[in-house]
Amino acid sequence: MSRPGEAPMDKRVPTRFPVLRELADRWSPRSFLDRAPDPRQLCSIFEAARLAPSAHNTQPSRFLVARKGVGDGHARLSACLSEANQVWAPGAPVLVLASVMRERLSQVTGAMVPYPHAMHDLGLAVMSAIVQAQSMGLHCHPIAGFEPDLARAAFRVPDLFEPGLILAIGYAGPADALPEELQLKERGSRTRRVLEEVLFEGDWGLPSPLLAAPGSPP
Amino acid sequence: MSRPGEAPMDKRVPTRFPVLRELADRWSPRSFLDRAPDPRQLCSIFEAARLAPSAHNTQPSRFLVARKGVGDGHARLSACLSEANQVWAPGAPVLVLASVMRERLSQVTGAMVPYPHAMHDLGLAVMSAIVQAQSMGLHCHPIAGFEPDLARAAFRVPDLFEPGLILAIGYAGPADALPEELQLKERGSRTRRVLEEVLFEGDWGLPSPLLAAPGSPP
Repeated sequence: MSRPGEAPMDKRVPTRFPVLRELADRWSPRSFLDRAPDPRQLCSIFEAARLAPSAHNTQPSRFLVARKGVGDGHARLSACLSEANQVWAPGAPVLVLASVMRERLSQVTGAMVPYPHAMHDLGLAVMSAIVQAQSMGLHCHPIAGFEPDLARAAFRVPDLFEPGLILAIGYAGPADALPEELQLKERGSRTRRVLEEVLFEGDWGLPSPLLAAPGSPP
Repeated sequence: MSRPGEAPMDKRVPTRFPVLRELADRWSPRSFLDRAPDPRQLCSIFEAARLAPSAHNTQPSRFLVARKGVGDGHARLSACLSEANQVWAPGAPVLVLASVMRERLSQVTGAMVPYPHAMHDLGLAVMSAIVQAQSMGLHCHPIAGFEPDLARAAFRVPDLFEPGLILAIGYAGPADALPEELQLKERGSRTRRVLEEVLFEGDWGLPSPLLAAPGSPP
């Protein structure tokens, strides 16, 4: 679905050990095709999010979907994006406001109690959604740069919930459809810390002997 | 690998729309077989975590792995679990302390700035790890019930990082290996909110017309 002369982009980060296709091929585009995902695909994405684990099975995540051409939700949510993200994100056919419960009901006392893992558990649900999308040929871009207070007012988010991020969903589009200053970013390689920097064993900062395991041939 | 008379458990939650096998089959066991995952499998799990997206590509997640029978890390991390989790989680052959950066380096000012999405981004990385494990026949159980301060002291976690959760990894074991009061939980059905409760469109609480899409036959 690329424009003439532009091959589909391979943004894979080299790995020494094999990784599930949906995780290896995943990346966060800024350019999206003007092509709406099938409603059933979107439903599969939210089914996946619904199945994610959460502390005490609280299931704190809520998703407000805004489709281009369906009501004015897409425009209202786009208006909550940061200035930098307004340049590209409204091009995605689907934007989702993902929110999370700030407190949870204690199964012991029946009272509302703090829920420090709320944002973590939202992340579990959002990654489930992203992996599901990827398995169907769609791409997602999670966006932290938006105004939660604007989103709360625009969609009447209750006090109990916190708008956490906006998720852009669609088919990845050609880089040259973006403003020039974003094309370089879109075509650039993804960068990641090496395994040695994120995996320890025994004590903080000590390399894990696991990494001596024979990896895949490069 | 079940005991005589015990069939492998199917814990799938019914869905109206199809979901990737790794997400549909996933659940969080308390009983694990006494069988160590292959070191290469563990490396694939941390490769997957490393590839997860994060705000400003901060890549804030760090993993301290503790394998039963390799040094004393497994026992030291087990000692940080809450009392309820000490009953079962030390049975997992692998426990992982997952921590996250509390602040991030601003690319604009070069100073450390607040990072409100840290726990969310840790969740993205942890779910990537869980999905990767699931694709290789392993199961994970993310554990919020532990003492972050004990874990910080036990493994000398620097101030910049926050211990976020413990992830148990291994092969799911038979329910009857658990203490009696946990066997019921282990055999019970997973419960999830219906799609209508987590997916809105237009305004908070309004049902999405997406859900009128024809689903899979039940």
